[in-house]
Amino acid sequence: MDYNTILQGKYPAKQHAKRVADFIRSKVPNASGVLYVESRATKLLEDNDEAEPFRQRRFFYYLTGCPLADCYLVYDIDTSHSTLFIPPIDPESVIWSGLPVSAEEALQKFDVDEVRYTNDINATLAHIGADKKQRSTAFAIPNQVSEHVTFLEFDDKNFSILKEAIEVSRVIKDDFELAMIAKANAISSEAHLAVMKKVKHVKNERELEAVFIGHCIAEGARNQAYHSIVASGRAAATLHYVANNAPMAGKLNLLLDAGGEWDCYASDITRVFPISGKFTKESRAIYDIVLKMQLDCIAVLKDGVLWDDVHLLAHKVAIGGLLELGILKGDKDEILANRTSVAFFPHGLGHYLGMDTHDTGGNPNYLDRDAMFRYLRVRGTLPAGSVITVEPGIYFCNFIIEPFLKDAKHSKFIDAEVLEKYWDVGGVRIEDNILITKTGSENLTLAIKDPAEIERIMASN
Amino acid sequence: MDYNTILQGKYPAKQHAKRVADFIRSKVPNASGVLYVESRATKLLEDNDEAEPFRQRRFFYYLTGCPLADCYLVYDIDTSHSTLFIPPIDPESVIWSGLPVSAEEALQKFDVDEVRYTNDINATLAHIGADKKQRSTAFAIPNQVSEHVTFLEFDDKNFSILKEAIEVSRVIKDDFELAMIAKANAISSEAHLAVMKKVKHVKNERELEAVFIGHCIAEGARNQAYHSIVASGRAAATLHYVANNAPMAGKLNLLLDAGGEWDCYASDITRVFPISGKFTKESRAIYDIVLKMQLDCIAVLKDGVLWDDVHLLAHKVAIGGLLELGILKGDKDEILANRTSVAFFPHGLGHYLGMDTHDTGGNPNYLDRDAMFRYLRVRGTLPAGSVITVEPGIYFCNFIIEPFLKDAKHSKFIDAEVLEKYWDVGGVRIEDNILITKTGSENLTLAIKDPAEIERIMASN
Repeated sequence: MDYNTILQGKYPAKQHAKRVADFIRSKVPNASGVLYVESRATKLLEDNDEAEPFRQRRFFYYLTGCPLADCYLVYDIDTSHSTLFIPPIDPESVIWSGLPVSAEEALQKFDVDEVRYTNDINATLAHIGADKKQRSTAFAIPNQVSEHVTFLEFDDKNFSILKEAIEVSRVIKDDFELAMIAKANAISSEAHLAVMKKVKHVKNERELEAVFIGHCIAEGARNQAYHSIVASGRAAATLHYVANNAPMAGKLNLLLDAGGEWDCYASDITRVFPISGKFTKESRAIYDIVLKMQLDCIAVLKDGVLWDDVHLLAHKVAIGGLLELGILKGDKDEILANRTSVAFFPHGLGHYLGMDTHDTGGNPNYLDRDAMFRYLRVRGTLPAGSVITVEPGIYFCNFIIEPFLKDAKHSKFIDAEVLEKYWDVGGVRIEDNILITKTGSENLTLAIKDPAEIERIMASN
Repeated sequence: MDYNTILQGKYPAKQHAKRVADFIRSKVPNASGVLYVESRATKLLEDNDEAEPFRQRRFFYYLTGCPLADCYLVYDIDTSHSTLFIPPIDPESVIWSGLPVSAEEALQKFDVDEVRYTNDINATLAHIGADKKQRSTAFAIPNQVSEHVTFLEFDDKNFSILKEAIEVSRVIKDDFELAMIAKANAISSEAHLAVMKKVKHVKNERELEAVFIGHCIAEGARNQAYHSIVASGRAAATLHYVANNAPMAGKLNLLLDAGGEWDCYASDITRVFPISGKFTKESRAIYDIVLKMQLDCIAVLKDGVLWDDVHLLAHKVAIGGLLELGILKGDKDEILANRTSVAFFPHGLGHYLGMDTHDTGGNPNYLDRDAMFRYLRVRGTLPAGSVITVEPGIYFCNFIIEPFLKDAKHSKFIDAEVLEKYWDVGGVRIEDNILITKTGSENLTLAIKDPAEIERIMASN
């Protein structure tokens, strides 16, 4: 994908607004009126005069492509006319911060029909509302409307459907969004390579996090899509490890789960590297199982595939591999039915990826009584145009495995003696970002995962 | 200062609590009861399942030295007994995040007398309150008390004095706090050096921000004390420049205002480097004036000095230098009285530094009708033990200077023709972090600022 060329265009905000309006009309047949969304407001850190780290509100970005704080959007669903409201110029602020984006520049930059200043918002809304011939509604998101904003001239306010409409619309990405995700992936894949080359040469996990974040910032991905996991040795079995500051000496593997963000669009990539530059026999055996889990799952992806089935396939491959190593014992179908493999692969196979790392529209069921599916963040079929992470893993986490060893229902399928040899492997997860297409899928992640190639690159660095 | 040795000890939380209690007793003579503070609560990003970047609440850290979320502290001002409340262990969370700090570990780690779990808070408070013989008060900070926390057994609640008491107490730092600031400065000074060596070799400001942040993270300073300013060319005249992503080709100087944080304690350092490796005549002339402003100001610092006077001294040196260059013309005393130098040095000379970059206790007067003092963040005398930034600057910012040129009151003192040669210098600021002592001061900032040395280092890199 030639993402750099695509990204020279404008973020297709109006197309998104139309899609959202269509969704609303499918639920509210004669809907007339406006969609109203606000960007993230500037907010100071508590007890401090510095602004909080800014993170644009995703619902607003989806309908504008505008990264600015303190803005509003009004989209007229009857005329498809969109008006972006940006903060007026404050002379005091210009002295300290320079000139902000002007209305003229904003009109050039963003895919909207008109740009006004935010102090016009109520007058504009009143004007639009008063002009409506049929019963009109202001559609907005609860708790995301400033107190001073009134919808006086509208007959109804609907604060219940817009959020869902945007969340559902976001599932299928258009080419521009795919280019954003591809760009985030390209930068992050290079950052993974930079870390790989350093692993042998550093003493502490934090030095590798520094390499990753530094690489992203240098390439223009100023924000991380999520807090990275840089976990050496057994820490890799802690799924939400965040410390990233342990010494690495004497440990086997380094798990790096990290991705930069490109203009609000995420990447989410996990790789595992041998700290010595060469996988031990046990590490390689686990790595090969996880890689097979991932490749087999990616191979069945296409428009309409049931994600629950793909997750189940990952477990089947895991069970096969763990049986072969002797960590599991017994009948593979019984083990699967018994959910014993959850001890080693406790999380879901993946999640939608977009503006949020765990993107909208997945319909998870965190109350599912089936332990194998409880943490699966996407349930149901994947449509073409959606982007999903495929991130199987096998972990040796005592907090997770011990209850299984103590439960006769599971312990008969686990060979505790063989298992002993694997604790130091820690955990292996391999995660790519995959676009679902009509006929299959396309991998947006370029980071190297072939174990022989990893060893070769590490040997020459 | 051997900060690494000092930092092997415990953060002196009880000494801080006693100091705060003493302040309260000086205002409320027979005060009896408890100080109550909460740490920052865990909070998710809006519309997202990832936690917000965590920033510990400073009031809590000051009284505990504890970096954890979702904790409380109760300090009995009659017995000096302190009790830290940490979140109870959640088995579900252990599976994903590993074991949290236990009560036993917390008691070892933090300078408190007792550690309990947060579900004990109301029972413990009730017990302490009920035991008081005299009239008792719960001192707390408004909007920083969880709704479920009750002070039922206390006669009074005082939500007005504790915040001020901590803010005032924080002005004078003890040795441990100085060691924290020195450590943050040591790491950040090295990071400045790393940037200096790279300036000649990169194309975009963001590559330098990457070097700075990467260096800090690698050395354990995971958070920046504030959003760095990496401004090339004329952007350096924008005092709150935050974009940090402009190409540097063809520009004269790079202003870097950046500092890492060490366990909640800030550094705040500014340096200016010639992008070519060698200052132009004009750049060097401005650099020399600013350096003299800074050195002359540092030379007069000691316990009891009036900061307003030091700020005034900086302006006098600036006026002398700008007269010598011919940018200003006329009588130096008249220029000073007329406040014309504010056109080139519009901000304050510095601010207290501690847990906040702009630390508490400065008593600024942002409504001061004297333009020279309006933005001065510290007013009055500096006590020994306080840490202050000394950060004079001279800027060529058209938004700031033009109104002066258009105002006959000022324009007669400015030679617009000479000024023309200086716009490309952008802005020069030199900022160090200075400890005030009984007899003088101590500079905690190690970053190189001698212009000849900067050029020498840049030439050999």
